[in-house]
Amino acid sequence: MKIYDTKTAPTPRRVRIFLAEKQIPMDYVQVDLAAGENLSDEMRAKNPMAKVPILELDDGTCISESVAICRYFELLHPEPPLMGTSALEQAQTEMWQRQTEFGLFMQVGFCFQHTSGYFKDRMKPVPEFGEEAGKNAMAFMKILDRRLADSEFIAGESFSIADITALCAIDFARVVKIRIDEEQTHLKRWHKAVSARSSVSGTL
Amino acid sequence: MKIYDTKTAPTPRRVRIFLAEKQIPMDYVQVDLAAGENLSDEMRAKNPMAKVPILELDDGTCISESVAICRYFELLHPEPPLMGTSALEQAQTEMWQRQTEFGLFMQVGFCFQHTSGYFKDRMKPVPEFGEEAGKNAMAFMKILDRRLADSEFIAGESFSIADITALCAIDFARVVKIRIDEEQTHLKRWHKAVSARSSVSGTL
Repeated sequence: MKIYDTKTAPTPRRVRIFLAEKQIPMDYVQVDLAAGENLSDEMRAKNPMAKVPILELDDGTCISESVAICRYFELLHPEPPLMGTSALEQAQTEMWQRQTEFGLFMQVGFCFQHTSGYFKDRMKPVPEFGEEAGKNAMAFMKILDRRLADSEFIAGESFSIADITALCAIDFARVVKIRIDEEQTHLKRWHKAVSARSSVSGTL
Repeated sequence: MKIYDTKTAPTPRRVRIFLAEKQIPMDYVQVDLAAGENLSDEMRAKNPMAKVPILELDDGTCISESVAICRYFELLHPEPPLMGTSALEQAQTEMWQRQTEFGLFMQVGFCFQHTSGYFKDRMKPVPEFGEEAGKNAMAFMKILDRRLADSEFIAGESFSIADITALCAIDFARVVKIRIDEEQTHLKRWHKAVSARSSVSGTL
């Protein structure tokens, strides 16, 4: 079993932290996105979307999409739970994971791709849209700050996949000069606490 | 228990089809998105993202995000399974659901929002980005056509949430004049089959 990974990219980092939380050892194979290694026929056969991470099982079956890979390990290794346990908790964790993904993680990614032109050999950057995405990301950080005034972690009282998504988004946001505002004290408290987890500091 | 819904919008339609497949009766409350009813303080208290659908339980607990609502009912009413059963099936279904959501459903949504200016009172449309999103949607339909050459449904041999996401995206795509190409015979075969399901024809 192995995972095609890119150390510097925020999406595969989510899976690395998830597996570190569960103490699941993994063989990581580095893919050079800047050089376009993910665009080869061989990689497209593993994932037609030509993205990492990709989990490849010993029989060659491939699962892509970070959250789908996390789901696979959550089901096989339920402890510690990172996607909730009761039906309500699982739904609420998925809700926060998705809102954080669409409201923050993707917006930061759009801002990076459309304002930096980093992938301009394979997509058409629209800087005006990238700037709007950056504003959306900052607006969502306000929502998160309010949420974290009432809750230790994003989805509730325990660390979950929603925290992983938010952490990877916020850490990557530095490349587009988006940072937690000094006034966002709850978000700062949370960021300091989650950054200190060994699963996080060990996967930087 | 009730769901805040908008009959004409593609996102809440996903939940209506999901619940119809499981034959779960539901009380739907219509929210007028065009008039901005979703932007009220009352609705933001239920979902800070100010979007529908929102599931409100009898004790007032709210769950938003269509896939999170579907997860809740999948866990409470597992039959028929729409998110896979084994760990591998669940992961593969989630992979296809997400790829279809990001590659098609969201792209169609972006194309609509950014080229029509429908929500220009609450976001800044960037038409150039909307046009790119439309091209992305059409590129993903080619991937889906190839997938459906080998598979009866998108995630495998049974109907799943991935089919619901794709169907709602493709049906909504008519508003931006994106349709299945005549040459995409597998996608056409699939679209005809899923459109004939009573869960689908009854929730139009």
